[in-house]
Amino acid sequence: MRSDNRKYNQLRHIEIVPNFLDHPLGSALISFGRTRVLCSVSMEEKVPKWIRGSGQGWITAEYSMLPSAGIERMQREATRGKIGGRTHEIQRLIGRSFRSVCDLSVLGERTVWVDCDVIQADGGTRTASITGGFTALMMAVNKMMDSGILKKNPLRERVAAISVGIVKNEVMLDLDYEEDSAADVDMNLVMTESGKIIEIQGTAEKNPFSKNKCNEMIDLAFCGIKKLLDYQQETIGKI
Amino acid sequence: MRSDNRKYNQLRHIEIVPNFLDHPLGSALISFGRTRVLCSVSMEEKVPKWIRGSGQGWITAEYSMLPSAGIERMQREATRGKIGGRTHEIQRLIGRSFRSVCDLSVLGERTVWVDCDVIQADGGTRTASITGGFTALMMAVNKMMDSGILKKNPLRERVAAISVGIVKNEVMLDLDYEEDSAADVDMNLVMTESGKIIEIQGTAEKNPFSKNKCNEMIDLAFCGIKKLLDYQQETIGKI
Amino acid sequence: MRSDNRKYNQLRHIEIVPNFLDHPLGSALISFGRTRVLCSVSMEEKVPKWIRGSGQGWITAEYSMLPSAGIERMQREATRGKIGGRTHEIQRLIGRSFRSVCDLSVLGERTVWVDCDVIQADGGTRTASITGGFTALMMAVNKMMDSGILKKNPLRERVAAISVGIVKNEVMLDLDYEEDSAADVDMNLVMTESGKIIEIQGTAEKNPFSKNKCNEMIDLAFCGIKKLLDYQQETIGKI
Amino acid sequence: MRSDNRKYNQLRHIEIVPNFLDHPLGSALISFGRTRVLCSVSMEEKVPKWIRGSGQGWITAEYSMLPSAGIERMQREATRGKIGGRTHEIQRLIGRSFRSVCDLSVLGERTVWVDCDVIQADGGTRTASITGGFTALMMAVNKMMDSGILKKNPLRERVAAISVGIVKNEVMLDLDYEEDSAADVDMNLVMTESGKIIEIQGTAEKNPFSKNKCNEMIDLAFCGIKKLLDYQQETIGKI
Amino acid sequence: MRSDNRKYNQLRHIEIVPNFLDHPLGSALISFGRTRVLCSVSMEEKVPKWIRGSGQGWITAEYSMLPSAGIERMQREATRGKIGGRTHEIQRLIGRSFRSVCDLSVLGERTVWVDCDVIQADGGTRTASITGGFTALMMAVNKMMDSGILKKNPLRERVAAISVGIVKNEVMLDLDYEEDSAADVDMNLVMTESGKIIEIQGTAEKNPFSKNKCNEMIDLAFCGIKKLLDYQQETIGKI
Amino acid sequence: MRSDNRKYNQLRHIEIVPNFLDHPLGSALISFGRTRVLCSVSMEEKVPKWIRGSGQGWITAEYSMLPSAGIERMQREATRGKIGGRTHEIQRLIGRSFRSVCDLSVLGERTVWVDCDVIQADGGTRTASITGGFTALMMAVNKMMDSGILKKNPLRERVAAISVGIVKNEVMLDLDYEEDSAADVDMNLVMTESGKIIEIQGTAEKNPFSKNKCNEMIDLAFCGIKKLLDYQQETIGKI
Repeated sequence: MRSDNRKYNQLRHIEIVPNFLDHPLGSALISFGRTRVLCSVSMEEKVPKWIRGSGQGWITAEYSMLPSAGIERMQREATRGKIGGRTHEIQRLIGRSFRSVCDLSVLGERTVWVDCDVIQADGGTRTASITGGFTALMMAVNKMMDSGILKKNPLRERVAAISVGIVKNEVMLDLDYEEDSAADVDMNLVMTESGKIIEIQGTAEKNPFSKNKCNEMIDLAFCGIKKLLDYQQETIGKI
Repeated sequence: MRSDNRKYNQLRHIEIVPNFLDHPLGSALISFGRTRVLCSVSMEEKVPKWIRGSGQGWITAEYSMLPSAGIERMQREATRGKIGGRTHEIQRLIGRSFRSVCDLSVLGERTVWVDCDVIQADGGTRTASITGGFTALMMAVNKMMDSGILKKNPLRERVAAISVGIVKNEVMLDLDYEEDSAADVDMNLVMTESGKIIEIQGTAEKNPFSKNKCNEMIDLAFCGIKKLLDYQQETIGKI
Repeated sequence: MRSDNRKYNQLRHIEIVPNFLDHPLGSALISFGRTRVLCSVSMEEKVPKWIRGSGQGWITAEYSMLPSAGIERMQREATRGKIGGRTHEIQRLIGRSFRSVCDLSVLGERTVWVDCDVIQADGGTRTASITGGFTALMMAVNKMMDSGILKKNPLRERVAAISVGIVKNEVMLDLDYEEDSAADVDMNLVMTESGKIIEIQGTAEKNPFSKNKCNEMIDLAFCGIKKLLDYQQETIGKI
Repeated sequence: MRSDNRKYNQLRHIEIVPNFLDHPLGSALISFGRTRVLCSVSMEEKVPKWIRGSGQGWITAEYSMLPSAGIERMQREATRGKIGGRTHEIQRLIGRSFRSVCDLSVLGERTVWVDCDVIQADGGTRTASITGGFTALMMAVNKMMDSGILKKNPLRERVAAISVGIVKNEVMLDLDYEEDSAADVDMNLVMTESGKIIEIQGTAEKNPFSKNKCNEMIDLAFCGIKKLLDYQQETIGKI
Repeated sequence: MRSDNRKYNQLRHIEIVPNFLDHPLGSALISFGRTRVLCSVSMEEKVPKWIRGSGQGWITAEYSMLPSAGIERMQREATRGKIGGRTHEIQRLIGRSFRSVCDLSVLGERTVWVDCDVIQADGGTRTASITGGFTALMMAVNKMMDSGILKKNPLRERVAAISVGIVKNEVMLDLDYEEDSAADVDMNLVMTESGKIIEIQGTAEKNPFSKNKCNEMIDLAFCGIKKLLDYQQETIGKI
Repeated sequence: MRSDNRKYNQLRHIEIVPNFLDHPLGSALISFGRTRVLCSVSMEEKVPKWIRGSGQGWITAEYSMLPSAGIERMQREATRGKIGGRTHEIQRLIGRSFRSVCDLSVLGERTVWVDCDVIQADGGTRTASITGGFTALMMAVNKMMDSGILKKNPLRERVAAISVGIVKNEVMLDLDYEEDSAADVDMNLVMTESGKIIEIQGTAEKNPFSKNKCNEMIDLAFCGIKKLLDYQQETIGKI
């Protein structure tokens, strides 16, 4: 039995508070159990150098943890003067995931910034960031369409993400910190409404795993993501 | 008349949510109107090099703004790779303020970290950080006394802070962002329960000011701080 | 037909030159077609702070590209003063892969450094780094056993890695730079001799992909890795 | 009695050597007792990005201590690779002070750089920097008017600064290093010829202070600044 | 007798492999005994800011050692986040040497980058870098003339470099690492075909040396450089 | 004729003000014409890691230019966040020069810091730094012997340095900035009382030079250094 009486295939309590902030185009505070991430989306009327003049836009993400998000206080990356490898890995994942369902030419020569700030961490911060970040992105796109900046919706499908893993030989959905620390395998999946995979990242922290286990994890993740997408739709509707 | 119908000597709506986070020793989400700062306090069983062996502790603060806290998205200091001058100035002010009412030898060779993360900015972020940070500090100290880490309370008096300023020749309390931008003079005061000044910082952004105006501002700040201290006491009691 | 007349399931020309360098414990220059990576392994008699006193060792990797490895000259990361996100992502992948087949307690309190320097880049640099790096790691371990530093072999299984992808709807093995640029999906797999997955990373750069395609890619990668492991064994034998 | 037989309301020996350097527009070596600061002013025909096109100029200051200025050798900030919080605080104070008496539109789209390099430190380096820096600034402005770059003088009033403090319950003027280290309260005031306050910064390093003591310190500072302004006028005349 | 049976005036085994890389304009892997440096030359259609509009080009060099080039693994400069003094010194030397035989106005407003990456280090890495780098530079210039980018050859003379030193009172040519470590004096000379000196850098690591010894070293270096230039000519011809 | 009526073999006006600062062990303000460098020497009771336990000391130098030392204001290296190549080159030269005449085992496990801060630059800052820095070093050593920290003098010989160069085909001593900018060859020599060379660095900025010219320059430098050593002896005596 899991520590909070969850079944192996059960999500933690999910909550999405839209419009948590006044200033950005879109924002949402998302909770996966005790994990809480503040996601916000801003827009800038310029693009990175390498696509200037292409007529295309860009979506990029930044991810950060507040120093007291975890059990032990962590040093700020600003204080250390550099961004760590784990942060780089996560923010690249978020940006890539959103770009792959976005028609960047519809966006025009604009950069969309998705900021994911982890207020509290208890496992699954990157999947909460993607799910909450996409919710805020939809809100921002809606506002840009309302104000006439965008003529049509550049987003093709909705996106959500969840973690799965193998803990004590059992495949489990949505690992919390304690489960994640004990896991033999940790996998993150980003998927679309139509059941397609955007990103799969599976890591054998302790024991390499078979292709069968890989498929079991993918199936379980798909069930979880379906529930997240339903919840996302209840909160802010469809594209 | 001020934009939100406040009188010249009136605070904005103040709110303190204690225990906003699960992990740190103390935490509080404080709002001064639309300005919201998440304050949290952690403790580390070591001190900076220059006081090792002295038997004394240390209190230090870090201040940061989320990139979408303000009207325009700001670049993260972690991304720029260095902490800006304004941030340095503010976090030094917060740390100094708290040390000046703390008996550091009662603390023992420990460092207390006060993190002030601005979730939303509308003027007064440094005074909200001090007022909310001290609230979280009291909670942390209480917890350290309950668990026997501290034998007695190292804090001598409670502390709060407020801004005052001169806007269109009128002395005003607790400036919001718009008022602050238009102010001729901007002053921040940190005071104690006993009406003593810990820190006074007054800056003539546009017009130098007389000693009389200086005294008017101090008096007005004192009234505001008294109300903050009352509110603080209702929320978490006395020392 | 692929640009170099390869079949969809065919590796590029593979070559491993062992002992390319005189000083490190193990070294190999590996080529996957025109991609060439110089891998070397060194050992240090200390471990990172967080495992000191645990009796366990650590394996870590660094990855870098020479400025003229690619078609356009790239700025050195040393000149920019920081390591980019892609580099971080790759070196974390390499280190994790090797740790997952190593009994770190057999290693003792030592750090093993695996350096992967890309001399020339034409796609697949991270999979060449893993395959060549593991070869150099085996050589280093053999030398440490010969000299009595290690009593037994800490490596449980041999490891290799390959990329697969979907290019114009066709699943393909071992993508070169041109194919990689045109790919809808890019996937990297790290596997063991016993056919277990250590790491799977699949990214839909352009079009999300189905679970069936995911399985096709895994199967194709497995065939490629089997050939790499055979070649590795011819070069330096078994564990 | 103070260590150098000064009365509580007496300045240290003040000396200003104008034109200490050949290259900058204005320069002065100022001494407050053993504290010596080399101030120089340069001009650049461009402004920071955020005011480009506004027709306005900018004044900015940089402050630094030579490594052997103090009792113990200090590490250079260039060697550490970053500017410390104290330095940031001081150079922001200097720049702000000068901008508040300057009509930046008369300056035109130019940046004036005020460099304050502390050759020897014995307390009061920031107030010596402001007093000496303003002297050099006047010289630079005179030269720019002589050469026709400026049509009229953008400076409205002369500026000087002094420290005051409470040491063993006594209010004192112009603290040296030893007094500053023992002070309960340390206050810096920047004032104009007309007796207006530009900046007030008072800090209770050890004991919070009353509003009465605050006023006593302001009055004492005003006397000191008046003498500094007289001395400044003897050296380089009026605006 | 020297450790590898060389005479005092004998070079180590020299080898130059041209076209070691596919992408850059010119490349060469040079060996001075066990010292191996990979040199490559790229071109960029822009110049540093300070010569823009002058019609002149620029040649600049970067030098780096792979972490396992030496006996002990060295930390990467990218990881440390800054380039060390020795590296700066060497890459400035290489760039200066090449500019002094190049007519930069013939080059036009282009920057030529010479990258020298030390694969293995056994003394003399800077002189091998200059000798090999110039070889790659000639190849790059030839290619730019063939493709019509350059109308005539901007290089006036060929260049090579060698180290000499005083070891146990004996003047010696082309020191390896062991000899270099034991040397009283270490000198590097960069010379041209016509026997002119471009750069002379002599350092008494342990004992200052007389003018006579200085001349002996220059003469010996000249003999060595003559052989290097012969070898260079055999490999890639004349200018 | 040279711009200031000097003969080709004439030094500029040389002046050394000893004890310019109160705090360091030794200090001197040296002028070579308009070039002025403030040199100071401090001592620290610890050595760099790589010689700990060897019983040997270390001498290291730091060199910096004040931002308004030259004709154009230069950005501070502290502001840029890194030390430039030229600075590295110079401070390594100064440190090496002093170590080569010092018996580091007599020094004991101490680090001697030589700080050379260029107040005003008009050519020859590195040779003024060496000459002035050595003067301050002698003063510091004398103080350490007086106080019993050192039992005997670790310095074997006195040291000074001068520049020579070829300007319009004429060999010249002690180049000022204008001459240096026009020079075909620029050479710096560091020599001892006994007429031995510690360091020779000659660079053909524009035209490679012959061995004969090299010898002419060495001879001229030796005459200049002899005069500097005489002047140094008048100021602070012999070792």
